[in-house]
Amino acid sequence: MRELGIGLAGFGTVGAGVFLNLEKNRALLRERVGCDLIVRGIAVKDPAKKRAIELPEKLLAANWRNLLDDPSIQVVVELMGGIEEPLELILGAIQRGKPVITGNKALLAEHGAQIFQLAAEKRVPVFYEAAVAGGIPIIKAVREAFVANHFLRIRGIINGTSNYILTRMAESGLDFAAALAEAQAAGYAEADPALDVNGWDAGHKAIILASLAYGFWVPSKDVLVEGIEKITPADIRFAAQLGYTIKLLAVIDAAADGAVEVSVQPSLVPEGNILASVRGVFNAIAVRGDVVGESLFYGRGAGQDPTASSVISDLADASVALESPRGSFGFIPHELYGKLRSSDEVVSPFYLRLGVDDKPGVLARIASVLGEANIGISSVIQPETQDGDQASLVLMIHDAPRGSMLDALQKIRALDCVHAEPALYRVEVTQ
Amino acid sequence: MRELGIGLAGFGTVGAGVFLNLEKNRALLRERVGCDLIVRGIAVKDPAKKRAIELPEKLLAANWRNLLDDPSIQVVVELMGGIEEPLELILGAIQRGKPVITGNKALLAEHGAQIFQLAAEKRVPVFYEAAVAGGIPIIKAVREAFVANHFLRIRGIINGTSNYILTRMAESGLDFAAALAEAQAAGYAEADPALDVNGWDAGHKAIILASLAYGFWVPSKDVLVEGIEKITPADIRFAAQLGYTIKLLAVIDAAADGAVEVSVQPSLVPEGNILASVRGVFNAIAVRGDVVGESLFYGRGAGQDPTASSVISDLADASVALESPRGSFGFIPHELYGKLRSSDEVVSPFYLRLGVDDKPGVLARIASVLGEANIGISSVIQPETQDGDQASLVLMIHDAPRGSMLDALQKIRALDCVHAEPALYRVEVTQ
Repeated sequence: MRELGIGLAGFGTVGAGVFLNLEKNRALLRERVGCDLIVRGIAVKDPAKKRAIELPEKLLAANWRNLLDDPSIQVVVELMGGIEEPLELILGAIQRGKPVITGNKALLAEHGAQIFQLAAEKRVPVFYEAAVAGGIPIIKAVREAFVANHFLRIRGIINGTSNYILTRMAESGLDFAAALAEAQAAGYAEADPALDVNGWDAGHKAIILASLAYGFWVPSKDVLVEGIEKITPADIRFAAQLGYTIKLLAVIDAAADGAVEVSVQPSLVPEGNILASVRGVFNAIAVRGDVVGESLFYGRGAGQDPTASSVISDLADASVALESPRGSFGFIPHELYGKLRSSDEVVSPFYLRLGVDDKPGVLARIASVLGEANIGISSVIQPETQDGDQASLVLMIHDAPRGSMLDALQKIRALDCVHAEPALYRVEVTQ
Repeated sequence: MRELGIGLAGFGTVGAGVFLNLEKNRALLRERVGCDLIVRGIAVKDPAKKRAIELPEKLLAANWRNLLDDPSIQVVVELMGGIEEPLELILGAIQRGKPVITGNKALLAEHGAQIFQLAAEKRVPVFYEAAVAGGIPIIKAVREAFVANHFLRIRGIINGTSNYILTRMAESGLDFAAALAEAQAAGYAEADPALDVNGWDAGHKAIILASLAYGFWVPSKDVLVEGIEKITPADIRFAAQLGYTIKLLAVIDAAADGAVEVSVQPSLVPEGNILASVRGVFNAIAVRGDVVGESLFYGRGAGQDPTASSVISDLADASVALESPRGSFGFIPHELYGKLRSSDEVVSPFYLRLGVDDKPGVLARIASVLGEANIGISSVIQPETQDGDQASLVLMIHDAPRGSMLDALQKIRALDCVHAEPALYRVEVTQ
């Protein structure tokens, strides 16, 4: 039987998962892939590090660069983390005609254009199913299964840590800090959870999805990314009263003029929308294509085994690609889209919570600022005051461009009857 | 640009959808596929038939056999319906080295083994994404994305007509006949809805999915298939009282000994299970793999455009396959599984509704028959009688082999206190 020699750069959670599952399901994979997938070299930063899975010492390479020039290695799997070294590894592998598999979302979001230009030039494929939504085959779906479709919109819950925290806040009334501590204790959040809770892990994934869907690399500096750190239990309660669940949502839209909108933002999702019912660490991605209509993918977005499942699927595809040149090398640029809409121009309804004086006339003053900006209010909740004369005022705002909304909010904050940090979240309108 | 000449056999709803969407998204497909997908011949049974979409007359072939020998046609798309002629067309295309795309679930379920044996022999791929769950890319997911996985179980709502009828029965209290009439009026059910409501449309799809998942062609004669015709509004109400929704479920399991269980049956699905919330004509398939864990695919399972989306995705894959030989030709047989478990041996909990005399002692007599068969009762509902002394008795039965349950039921029916046709449905236990 043909053998595929694999070089594994990185032996953290996912790398070890790939190694273990290749062993565990070897008999099955031999049948299905028609080829034996054999790890022939493993490179790690610190071989002495204590690991849950023992490092197979005889496979240890002195350095990740050795994987590139080892003639027994035909495919390189990059699961190192970081940017500079993975980029060098990936470009080096492509140069040598070795297909690459990576789960490095930050790297692809920042350097995708460069990587795939070289891949196309050298006719060497780069696979990245593991980079977006762990075990959910959304890359294959967008690239292959929905090839016939213009993507009208994509909505994703694609950061399991954030979704776990929001779920715990909603179901147990915890505040953000307590829910984060619980996520850390459960192993669902890193010791440094910054990229998860500040939205950028989801941001990188949204950039990859949008780039793939629209055929150009979306520049990350122009993408609006907000995290969940400022969401309060009160926001979650008010949203629930209004019939919504707050989710960290990747929002990708193609406007009628072909401009693409990409953001990651806490969003109020109507309870009838299936995304509102995605709980805990699960991920879900709803895709609307102009031919296929609405569809949804749901599953585990992270974790050792689900992510390894996607890496191994890419290995199987790489094995086919090595046998014969393919039409695509992982990303096909084209010019049918190409323009990113500024987040200021993006129109949506909003949820606005303000801390205000509990006095007559306050709502009138705020409404008048909004009215002057041509922004309509669809409903108001003014909950009973609990401590003295400081009150919350929650406004649901009709469709407004985000830029106008932010300008109006600045004027509202300048009013002497308005105190504290306001909360402004977009409202999802799709059902 | 390279061109791919397509021969289209059948110009019904889906065939016309393929033709129209290839035209509509031609610019996009040229970019993504790197090849122009051009319909060069269309064969229909009755060219004079009145159609919603006008038949492009200059493409009309005298006969479907002409598509086989037309040298300008490289790929054959079979959407004719029926068994004999499609089989001859598909085998003929493979013989001539022309990749085939088909949406014919009955044909694959009955003749898959023969078709894929010839495909492997001639190294010509056969694609069939459109045969199962319309626009949902479940074939690609099971075959490619989840290649690393042993499939522990698959559960599917894969007949939209049945699900529409059950949804209307649950939400509006309609009986089966009224809900079916509504489905027909809405265009969701054929004039002859037999295959949809008797379970066999879902049965064919379940056979294809299970065969693909386990690497052997599941013999249709050994698969238990039941439809929804006998479900009453009372069953739906009783199920709801107990916390369940009745769905027509494809049930595929691999037991610990490697035996495979395949059936299509009305099943009581717990309300917490996401499948319980799949409404109307939508389809959903939950897949549990030993590596990827739980995942779910949701979307439109039928209809012109969703199904065309899958056919066009197969055309794109066929275009790649024509450029270069592939490792797989649509189905990979192996012997890691291979045994089908008889439905009599399959163990599950059950819902049993009986029409009984409204007299003391009736429950005791029924319970005693079940007790003798070693079958346990987990709960009982005896709703208030509405008309005289005839009452419904609903029993929830603990895990029991279906064969033992049917034997016991036969004895129960022979009791003089039991009248009318009983209703026996399996209960889904996964959450």
